[in-house]
Amino acid sequence: MTEDLPNPALLPSGLTDLLPPEAAHEAALVEAMLAVFAGHGYERVKPPLLEFEDSLLAGSGHAVADQTFRLMDPDSHRMLGLRADTTPQVARIAATRLADVARPLRLSYSGQALRIRGTQLAPERQIPQTGIELIGPDSPEADAEVALLAVEALAAIGIARPSLDITLPTMAPALLDAAGVLGEQRLRLARALDRKDAAAVRELAAIAGPPANRLTALLTAAGPADGALAALEAAELPPAARAIADNAAAVIAAIRARAPELRITLDPVEFRGLQYHVGVAFTLYGPGSAGELARGGRYRSGEEAATGMTLYPDALRRAAPAAAPAARVFIPLGTDPVAAARLRAQGFITVAALSAADTPQRLRCGHILRGELAAPIEEIA
Amino acid sequence: MTEDLPNPALLPSGLTDLLPPEAAHEAALVEAMLAVFAGHGYERVKPPLLEFEDSLLAGSGHAVADQTFRLMDPDSHRMLGLRADTTPQVARIAATRLADVARPLRLSYSGQALRIRGTQLAPERQIPQTGIELIGPDSPEADAEVALLAVEALAAIGIARPSLDITLPTMAPALLDAAGVLGEQRLRLARALDRKDAAAVRELAAIAGPPANRLTALLTAAGPADGALAALEAAELPPAARAIADNAAAVIAAIRARAPELRITLDPVEFRGLQYHVGVAFTLYGPGSAGELARGGRYRSGEEAATGMTLYPDALRRAAPAAAPAARVFIPLGTDPVAAARLRAQGFITVAALSAADTPQRLRCGHILRGELAAPIEEIA
Repeated sequence: MTEDLPNPALLPSGLTDLLPPEAAHEAALVEAMLAVFAGHGYERVKPPLLEFEDSLLAGSGHAVADQTFRLMDPDSHRMLGLRADTTPQVARIAATRLADVARPLRLSYSGQALRIRGTQLAPERQIPQTGIELIGPDSPEADAEVALLAVEALAAIGIARPSLDITLPTMAPALLDAAGVLGEQRLRLARALDRKDAAAVRELAAIAGPPANRLTALLTAAGPADGALAALEAAELPPAARAIADNAAAVIAAIRARAPELRITLDPVEFRGLQYHVGVAFTLYGPGSAGELARGGRYRSGEEAATGMTLYPDALRRAAPAAAPAARVFIPLGTDPVAAARLRAQGFITVAALSAADTPQRLRCGHILRGELAAPIEEIA
Repeated sequence: MTEDLPNPALLPSGLTDLLPPEAAHEAALVEAMLAVFAGHGYERVKPPLLEFEDSLLAGSGHAVADQTFRLMDPDSHRMLGLRADTTPQVARIAATRLADVARPLRLSYSGQALRIRGTQLAPERQIPQTGIELIGPDSPEADAEVALLAVEALAAIGIARPSLDITLPTMAPALLDAAGVLGEQRLRLARALDRKDAAAVRELAAIAGPPANRLTALLTAAGPADGALAALEAAELPPAARAIADNAAAVIAAIRARAPELRITLDPVEFRGLQYHVGVAFTLYGPGSAGELARGGRYRSGEEAATGMTLYPDALRRAAPAAAPAARVFIPLGTDPVAAARLRAQGFITVAALSAADTPQRLRCGHILRGELAAPIEEIA
């Protein structure tokens, strides 16, 4: 019996190396987005990758508990968790070390999150997250600021005309509560909603009676915001559901006031995501098939109202145009370093020969330093 | 019996939150250093935080094996390691996915590393690392490029006049090998060298006989490079040790040729650090008591010659001056967003009021938007 030597290039599923030029592209996108956030007064925090399990999974962290890698800390002999989501950590910081800073508290972050399992659609288990949290205010204006700031960050990295999809994760539960739909019946309705099975929803909701039977109308109302809002407006809703609908209308109005061109869709009975949203939830889609680029919404940050948005640099990297790489200029052996420094100050990349074997071709240089200038290689012969 | 509820603000030892403005300061330093590396043709890679233990700890990764957090992967049912050092991962990438890219291969990286234990002097267990690897060439010029690039990165973040400390980690072993000093005697000599106990080294080296007794002279030769090189030149050394000394002289000459002003010290028999260095090892110290800012040196990257340098953003953040923060301008409720955008384009931070309760004072703004301008608050009354 021979035991195969492990392939050194093999990485665990969902964990990958980013190579040139992708790694630099991702970093540049993150930088540009954080600059946008900073311009709006969002201040950066950096929580650690590891925390005690009980603090990491408290509050909204509970939503990713079954996705969190755990390990034993030989120092404290307590269990640690490797963060699977950054928002709960920012909430902890806001509630503890930044408790005395006046609200609204605007924070930003960027880092890696790790998950035990990927999904078939999103197999990645290391997920870069770049995001913002607006803690304190509980108003449509706050929701609008956060959603539009994410849109502005996308624009800054060259992703124009995204689509903002708004869902109301508390709407379906409010209708089911008001109809007294519980237990197995509720579970089956939730599953039917989840797979957008209109026939099953209609059948189950009819059995459940009003106001659960509103679910059918709301399910088919999903689409461009104006139509969906009109359907919500027209529907007979119990008070809790009416409040949710009115809030959605106010959030959309606040967004529209500042970004009349933004494409907004509304899906009133969709519920998904990290399942800790208590008001509107946002998903930003790129144009074409770029897919989901950011998610967020209103949640509870400890005892406080909060709204936030997480952008996904790995998805953004695939959706955003890469900047043209700077020209690489070959610096022959023995060149005065000042000449190369001058070229770098002009935006060139200088690549120094370290031995006679190093040639412009080997070092992937399209230019060569001649005198004080970068000369294209093809002009030399 | 009551069980104390855990304090939610409590983090495991050596793991901390970076708050405003430190988190932004650290990120800005990292960005500036990576821009310096990119200007010299160093291309960024981003290995994952988790890898299979056996690939993570292979090669130079072995040096941090006992500092590496391990956890079970429920997906592969194999042990994973959380990286404790980035260099071995970059070596893996160079040897596998970038095996066909012509050498010299210039790579950069930036990310977090995690260690099981901190030390009394450096209690941190999450260590940001930003660095470069130059893979392929085995020459003093390559060592000089890497050391000087680290110095240039420090200059870019405002740390002028660092001191480069060069050690020769293979020198003491070469002398002990040549003298046939083994076992307990070798261990005691190594410990005496480690704590720079000149009396103990003298006593033990005298017993060991030549050429181990050169250790005493070399220990006291440590200091400014010129004096130390002269002592090395004058010492009677066996061939392996002479080659190490000659290489050190060549590396220092290559550095001096490009940076005559740089303060260089040489400690020929010091050996420390990650213990995978096979040639010169570098430590960069900041001015004053800024301490150790970067480490590196020559090592084996798989089967290849390599030299690299890791800079420590947490130490750099304490040593580097922070940029003056941009002025925060209060944007009153209902202001045209275009006016605020114009201020951001001028470098101001704009902080929007979201309710009538939000005042410039609460939002820590020294300016307020008046017409199209940012007016200092004290001028308003």
